[in-house]
Amino acid sequence: MVVSLNEPLDMHLHLRDGQMLDIVAPLSAETFSGALVMPNLVPPVTTKEAVVSYRQRVLKAGKNRAFTPYMSLFFRSDYTFEFLESVKDEILAIKLYPAGITTNSEGGVSGFDLLELAPVLNAMSELEIPLCVHGETGGFVMDREAEFIPVYEKLARNFPDLKIVMEHITTKDAVEALDRFENLYATITLHHLYITLDDVAGGLLQPHLFCKPIAKRPEDRAALLGAALSAHPKVMFGSDSAPHPREAKEAPGCAAGVFTAPIALQALAQLFDRHGAMEKLQRFVSDNAKRIYGIEPPAKEVILEKSPYLVPEIYEGSVVPMFAGQSIEWRVVSAG
Amino acid sequence: MVVSLNEPLDMHLHLRDGQMLDIVAPLSAETFSGALVMPNLVPPVTTKEAVVSYRQRVLKAGKNRAFTPYMSLFFRSDYTFEFLESVKDEILAIKLYPAGITTNSEGGVSGFDLLELAPVLNAMSELEIPLCVHGETGGFVMDREAEFIPVYEKLARNFPDLKIVMEHITTKDAVEALDRFENLYATITLHHLYITLDDVAGGLLQPHLFCKPIAKRPEDRAALLGAALSAHPKVMFGSDSAPHPREAKEAPGCAAGVFTAPIALQALAQLFDRHGAMEKLQRFVSDNAKRIYGIEPPAKEVILEKSPYLVPEIYEGSVVPMFAGQSIEWRVVSAG
Repeated sequence: MVVSLNEPLDMHLHLRDGQMLDIVAPLSAETFSGALVMPNLVPPVTTKEAVVSYRQRVLKAGKNRAFTPYMSLFFRSDYTFEFLESVKDEILAIKLYPAGITTNSEGGVSGFDLLELAPVLNAMSELEIPLCVHGETGGFVMDREAEFIPVYEKLARNFPDLKIVMEHITTKDAVEALDRFENLYATITLHHLYITLDDVAGGLLQPHLFCKPIAKRPEDRAALLGAALSAHPKVMFGSDSAPHPREAKEAPGCAAGVFTAPIALQALAQLFDRHGAMEKLQRFVSDNAKRIYGIEPPAKEVILEKSPYLVPEIYEGSVVPMFAGQSIEWRVVSAG
Repeated sequence: MVVSLNEPLDMHLHLRDGQMLDIVAPLSAETFSGALVMPNLVPPVTTKEAVVSYRQRVLKAGKNRAFTPYMSLFFRSDYTFEFLESVKDEILAIKLYPAGITTNSEGGVSGFDLLELAPVLNAMSELEIPLCVHGETGGFVMDREAEFIPVYEKLARNFPDLKIVMEHITTKDAVEALDRFENLYATITLHHLYITLDDVAGGLLQPHLFCKPIAKRPEDRAALLGAALSAHPKVMFGSDSAPHPREAKEAPGCAAGVFTAPIALQALAQLFDRHGAMEKLQRFVSDNAKRIYGIEPPAKEVILEKSPYLVPEIYEGSVVPMFAGQSIEWRVVSAG
């Protein structure tokens, strides 16, 4: 059995910088046609120069493969209209992090005072720059996303012309919120379609499956599967693939993040195939994003076939992927 | 400020065997007057000979300190009345594990068929041997204990003369169940009085706080604190102190267990002091257990004073305790 995917897109990707960028960028560029690149570097990407220079580094690391890095800017409430207008053509979106909620988010937003955020959000509405949000409160880990839904609703209601993407949603609550506001969209990761908290901490502790937002309950995963497998028109694939060096993942105080980029299409094919939903995968992994963001990524056809693929234990001796050392039922035959 | 505790008891303790036993037994024997020693060795403790020989090893490892290891037997549904009668004087309780639910529990009970369990439970009732239960189902990790409550209720209702101890309870549901049946009791650990899932996986991942049952929600911890700080008459301290070598705790696939025995009294004093409940600590950590189990442990007075105690980073280069390298507000001045 063979499946062809056109212009696969990863609408939430962490490529890091330096040596890690050099390891992971080619892996995404190989099978994806484009990706929305997250701006949470140290320091975060907050200037036009930083965007342009980061894109160049990504392109260089991607080794000239047909791959468009769609850049994002780290949200700041003090951006001026003039600045946003000047940077508009260099970015696809602006990413908002609540302060301190995940890796390198220390400079994010504290509280969600609409008066404080309004000038930037109004400018983004006018300039048609989508807002991507890491939607978690500082509450109890299993409740953080559900508690954040009222903030999404407040944003959606008060800025009706702003496209708001709920990033890496993990809960039934977020899936339900999607349909209450026309301007709310969402990305869903690979790992949240596969795992629940049971896989992280239900047996032995599995640091390589530890992520933020943390994987939730079985009924939450079921809701995510419902949205993804039906290719809900407001839902896009965003891997949130987040590489950390193995030493950092396998030590106490392990950082959050699951590295999925190089095995994402294979594992998505397996998942959609198992659920008899293969005909929806093209929309979930590309068409929805093209329509929502209005983008035309470079042509790329990825052929997958149902044939066992042994996932590497580690990439470049440094980064351990999801399903490391395990077999996936689908493999990539060609991409180009 | 000084506090004196008489005959502190740890009614749920893992001492392991061999080299680990030699490391941890003296630490418990130093400040506790006695402890209920769990039988989940490899193979589990299921014969009179195994009980007697394990007690001897514990006493030897405890280095002749005034410390009584109260032994337990690993529950099997095929124990005969005659066997139980013959072993009765050697044990304080029988510990029931659902199969595969925690460390070395592979030989435990599958399903809770009363017809299958009745002969042993009736014999235990008649011989007045309490039943200690690791009460978790194989369900979603956050629900396992709550889902098990109906099993506790079924046992309590059908075996009204059997003392049933819900071990290391972690939920509001279990605390509430305590008052519904006269013959239900409970132990509460140190760590479940301090932590929630947030401390394990809410920030960075903390393997040394990873345990079974997993730490639950803030409202669950509040219910446990309510029971412990009021020295609820059916609640006893049981540390569930569960040492693993550092290599095993700090690698992917880390085993469940928090090592608390050597710092338990200090941390309990800190907790009860902070909550203005110091006058209840004697009951929680000794009197309730003496009454519930009808035991008279060897006389031991432990004097603690409110003065900073720096918890060791590691014991014998092998076992990392809770609060490693941190300061606790109370220290042990003398024990004897």
